[in-house]
Amino acid sequence: MPDTVLPRLSRGLRDLLPDQMLARQQMVDTIRGVYENYGFVPLSTPAIEYLDVLSGSAGQEAQQSIFRVTNPEKEDLGLRFDLTVPLARVIAQYPELPRPFRRYQVASVWRADKPDKGRYREFTQFDLDSVGVESEVADTEILAGMCDTLSALGVGRFLVRFSSRAILNLLLDFAGISQEQSVDVFRVLDKLDKVGLDKVKLELMQGYKDESGDTIRGVGLRAEQVEKIERFLAIRGSRNEVLGQLTDLFGKLETPVRSISDHLYALGYGDDQVSLDLSIARGLAYYTGPVFEAILLDAPQFGSVFGGGRYDDLVMRFLGQPIPAVGASIGVDRLLAALAHLGKIGQQKATARVLITNMDSSLTSEYLAMTWELRRAGIPTEFFLGSAKGPRKQLKYADEYEIPLAILYGSNEHQQGMVTVKDLIAGRENLKPTADRKEYLAQRAGQVTIPRSELVDSIRKMLAEIA
Amino acid sequence: MPDTVLPRLSRGLRDLLPDQMLARQQMVDTIRGVYENYGFVPLSTPAIEYLDVLSGSAGQEAQQSIFRVTNPEKEDLGLRFDLTVPLARVIAQYPELPRPFRRYQVASVWRADKPDKGRYREFTQFDLDSVGVESEVADTEILAGMCDTLSALGVGRFLVRFSSRAILNLLLDFAGISQEQSVDVFRVLDKLDKVGLDKVKLELMQGYKDESGDTIRGVGLRAEQVEKIERFLAIRGSRNEVLGQLTDLFGKLETPVRSISDHLYALGYGDDQVSLDLSIARGLAYYTGPVFEAILLDAPQFGSVFGGGRYDDLVMRFLGQPIPAVGASIGVDRLLAALAHLGKIGQQKATARVLITNMDSSLTSEYLAMTWELRRAGIPTEFFLGSAKGPRKQLKYADEYEIPLAILYGSNEHQQGMVTVKDLIAGRENLKPTADRKEYLAQRAGQVTIPRSELVDSIRKMLAEIA
Repeated sequence: MPDTVLPRLSRGLRDLLPDQMLARQQMVDTIRGVYENYGFVPLSTPAIEYLDVLSGSAGQEAQQSIFRVTNPEKEDLGLRFDLTVPLARVIAQYPELPRPFRRYQVASVWRADKPDKGRYREFTQFDLDSVGVESEVADTEILAGMCDTLSALGVGRFLVRFSSRAILNLLLDFAGISQEQSVDVFRVLDKLDKVGLDKVKLELMQGYKDESGDTIRGVGLRAEQVEKIERFLAIRGSRNEVLGQLTDLFGKLETPVRSISDHLYALGYGDDQVSLDLSIARGLAYYTGPVFEAILLDAPQFGSVFGGGRYDDLVMRFLGQPIPAVGASIGVDRLLAALAHLGKIGQQKATARVLITNMDSSLTSEYLAMTWELRRAGIPTEFFLGSAKGPRKQLKYADEYEIPLAILYGSNEHQQGMVTVKDLIAGRENLKPTADRKEYLAQRAGQVTIPRSELVDSIRKMLAEIA
Repeated sequence: MPDTVLPRLSRGLRDLLPDQMLARQQMVDTIRGVYENYGFVPLSTPAIEYLDVLSGSAGQEAQQSIFRVTNPEKEDLGLRFDLTVPLARVIAQYPELPRPFRRYQVASVWRADKPDKGRYREFTQFDLDSVGVESEVADTEILAGMCDTLSALGVGRFLVRFSSRAILNLLLDFAGISQEQSVDVFRVLDKLDKVGLDKVKLELMQGYKDESGDTIRGVGLRAEQVEKIERFLAIRGSRNEVLGQLTDLFGKLETPVRSISDHLYALGYGDDQVSLDLSIARGLAYYTGPVFEAILLDAPQFGSVFGGGRYDDLVMRFLGQPIPAVGASIGVDRLLAALAHLGKIGQQKATARVLITNMDSSLTSEYLAMTWELRRAGIPTEFFLGSAKGPRKQLKYADEYEIPLAILYGSNEHQQGMVTVKDLIAGRENLKPTADRKEYLAQRAGQVTIPRSELVDSIRKMLAEIA
């Protein structure tokens, strides 16, 4: 025996076996359907980019997490860590692209971070962006698309929450917070969901010691500043109510957020789907206007499954001037995990709907003929190619992979011109009125015998009943 | 202005802009449909693999073309250069997978080769394989799948050609060629299409000088050996005729190729679709049984667009023992280039079927309402978000992206409760009987005016007529 290589993957990497891939494809196809319906078009960029293209404004942390790649020319290359930077490069590189450029891209990205439960070094993002549009209609469309996507995926109850950099800037003025302090303030506000209001208040002022004795340094705001922030955060209610209270608090309120909210109301996206939530502050160093995120109300522990906002500085790195852009990104893996947790996806283990069992090798041509008749009628069919001889093991195979129908066809059936079809859907009773006791028992076992000549029609009917 | 980064890609890499991606997605979806109908299931593996996993038996050449990757743990990693090695790893790593394991995978692979016209360093493969099946039914299925795929893609006339290692081994015996010489002999035979029989014969014997004066070294066979090879290569005709002549030549012929051919005849894959072509020798160091390839008869210059065979040594590297496997791989980029050349794909430039022009910003709510009415009826619709003010530039945009219908709705239409729909399909006449001269002229311009309340129904009907 030659030396063998251990079959294994490096840490943070994983395979998606067929049941996981079927769930993922179903999800991705659904999302793609929503955005193609919106008239977004697909884009593909290579996994490998120049390092200076990738890391221009990514900051030290992002740069460290880039997987470096070597080509024969020994250039400085890396694997993309998101889909936004490649989009920015494309916008700068192809001035002939239409404006607005409304594209979606679903692809792998790589980050050499410390792997953790549910956190991988290669993962999939589904991004959509409108580039070149200042109008708040673009933001409206992204928010509506988030709702339509989550509805189409059947995630159950969800909430798309949004706020805006402009509103948070008004808060800074109102509470007398400097631009220098603002980054720290927003970072602390982002913890609200996780640690609660009391700890957020302490951290905004002098800091505190947490349960494990670690010191959480404070931002150093004064009590009256924090009191103003608290009044701001206490604003709750419908989007119209929040806008009303904000106007009361600040004295005036000129923001596209009002138009976005009005458009959404008019299009039927009510407060139950989209809320104006002032605690949303998402990485504001990056976003320049509205910011969005979505949570699943039946699985809030998965956090934000869909996030985005307006980021007009997209192509600064390449062109030295801003271009308006607004978009959102779905963490495909996280959303998929949440859907699986909710039992909303991942039931499919096979693509075949019919398994033709192999009972008698002298009948192979017959089996193949049946297989192709069904396939040509558009019914996904597998002819069992394994080594298991008896029908029992083959039926177990169908059962394990949840192929709903199995065909049994031996020399008896062959002579009689009949086919036995077994319905494998567990717990399913397939009874039809009959006076014949033998037929009754066969039906109880989920088994019917049909003429060979009616194979396709009968199978089609049985599958329609199951679906 | 800050220092800017030049937006660019490293050599051999490319973006797929929306029109290219739409064509590619259409092709990939079609192929996926064929194989899901066959009951194949999808698999996904990470782009990054351990170097020893990748290069075990890849040979020096393949190893040089691997893009090296660095992770924080400084392990020896690389980007996959095909989808077969990761499949072998998966088979070895998850013994619990069903046998047969019939999977498809469509994904990027990377090779750091010298880039050339139509040859990229990152490209896409669509692979399908049946692992764990000795039966020739698996080979039959792969060959039939190749035909069904090419038919489903509407490539026009194609030919799937196959031969077999076993038949070529019989030739070795017949012509008295040693196993050591066989690799060189097959390498030369593979050139038959390119250089012709005379040069192949010379190369099999003493060699020759080519047009540019370079010496082509000969394999050193004797004239009577080459004469036997020539008799073998002269065998042509239907699959049955080839099998008959082979039996005459060798005295006997026991090979699964006969069963494969018989199954294919029975399933309706005649000699016009699948030919037994003895000149096919494809990398026989790798394949252990039948070998296949497909050419487009209307675009033969693209060479083999689909190739594969049986390779029972797949998991040797990991398990030290063979597992039967047979599969095929589509070079997605090459096939796409061929289809584009034939004008069979790549007509689509947008996903939207309707463009709602923006003629009057005070009507934005109306435009949005129409946009969502159409989207909710499943009609892909874009509301023009660009900066172009007049309808002419917006119609040009629709025309450029081949969005078939544009909606014009200004204050006149608003007051009358009507909507003007412009049919932008070039050269299309949309005439309906009318006595009214004004209406006749509007129709000649591909323009109809419909009640606002009938928007969805009218658009649906117009699109159905176009499709």
